[in-house]
Amino acid sequence: MYFDSHLHTEGLGFSDLKKLSEAGIKEVCSLAFFPIEPKFPQTMVDLFRKLTEFETLRCEAAGVKMYPAVGIHPRCIPPDYGFVMKHLEEGEWLAFGEIGLENVTKEEIEVLTSQLEIAKERDIPCIIHTPRGNKKSATEKTLEILEKLDFPVELAVIDHVNFETLDMVLRSGYWIGLTVQPGKLSPDDAARIVLEHGSEKFMLNSDAGYRDTEITTVAEAAKKVMEVVGEKEMRSVARDNARKFLRL
Amino acid sequence: MYFDSHLHTEGLGFSDLKKLSEAGIKEVCSLAFFPIEPKFPQTMVDLFRKLTEFETLRCEAAGVKMYPAVGIHPRCIPPDYGFVMKHLEEGEWLAFGEIGLENVTKEEIEVLTSQLEIAKERDIPCIIHTPRGNKKSATEKTLEILEKLDFPVELAVIDHVNFETLDMVLRSGYWIGLTVQPGKLSPDDAARIVLEHGSEKFMLNSDAGYRDTEITTVAEAAKKVMEVVGEKEMRSVARDNARKFLRL
Repeated sequence: MYFDSHLHTEGLGFSDLKKLSEAGIKEVCSLAFFPIEPKFPQTMVDLFRKLTEFETLRCEAAGVKMYPAVGIHPRCIPPDYGFVMKHLEEGEWLAFGEIGLENVTKEEIEVLTSQLEIAKERDIPCIIHTPRGNKKSATEKTLEILEKLDFPVELAVIDHVNFETLDMVLRSGYWIGLTVQPGKLSPDDAARIVLEHGSEKFMLNSDAGYRDTEITTVAEAAKKVMEVVGEKEMRSVARDNARKFLRL
Repeated sequence: MYFDSHLHTEGLGFSDLKKLSEAGIKEVCSLAFFPIEPKFPQTMVDLFRKLTEFETLRCEAAGVKMYPAVGIHPRCIPPDYGFVMKHLEEGEWLAFGEIGLENVTKEEIEVLTSQLEIAKERDIPCIIHTPRGNKKSATEKTLEILEKLDFPVELAVIDHVNFETLDMVLRSGYWIGLTVQPGKLSPDDAARIVLEHGSEKFMLNSDAGYRDTEITTVAEAAKKVMEVVGEKEMRSVARDNARKFLRL
């Protein structure tokens, strides 16, 4: 049984959710994301409600246990986002995500920092996006923000890490999300990384969502890790580390 | 080339959208619907933006030309819905939908009536839901509201019509949506209706969306209409009537 630690079930159809379940991906963490910039902060609150109240049930009906993560992604920061922060401060949440930096603007840094401050105060695990372009400097800035906040290492996963940012994130001590998807890492890449650096810090995910993505890459990467590294390591990166990080 | 006149692409994954295209369903009308009751009217405005600005492009990328319809569905009426009405009054829209009655409450009647008033004033086609339970009396009430407004017959389609409500809606003169989906009409049912009542008033749809629905039922029903009735009739109910109704 596998765990996909980072996807967006809201972009998937019921048939995709069934494909996850059939591939043995029985648990997933689905991260808040709105594919346009909202005009109103209120929208984010209703989206978090949809994710936690409706989407969990839809996934369950397809045979997938879904754990929701809420938060403001840097590509969908609404105006007056203080309204959303207040909501995040007041609610009960399993995890914050997808949060992080995209273009490393002043506003993005403020929004990420505010969410991390709430997370630290309230002891909430954070799933932190790193962008496709500008990856190295955005990751450096993200780690700098975390360090400045003295953010607990067990409370953040730096996601979409690639060969360019791997060493830097390994040195930081935070969890590392390996996104297996055409254009990101291949199952072979993931297996190679685990073989070289051990299984302790990594969790596999697909980042599947709205676009034309492959759905069951965690299962494929898990098989490759099992083949190249071993069963114990496969279990860690394809399930147990995600469950430990999310305190399940 | 077929036209699905009523579905919710926001509940479908990219692979489902590709399935539509591969089945020859190259045009669809995607209707606004939020699967929980929003807490804020602002949310609806951002959802209409997502549908018109993002979802159209996502469908296009999968090979499907999507025409968006916006409006307040009776199952997702927000508080202070006047905010949404003002937005509907001010914008440029291809169609209103999914609107209609579910439990025939005073609020639902007000929300439907307000939207129909805007539509009549602004000459906007309306796609009108009828509920699964309570279908006959809800359809009667819907037709009564339309009649009271002297709502133009060419400007509304009464949707999810079944054998219980067919005669009533035929007498009213409005367009009729035939939803082909397990639990609603079968392809055989649709063909039988067209054989008996002609092709002039009907348009086929799947109502595919968030749930475990069949995606390509319009193509299947079209084939059955072609076989049982004829090619000309198939073209009307599986494409041309929807295009005429939406003024494409």
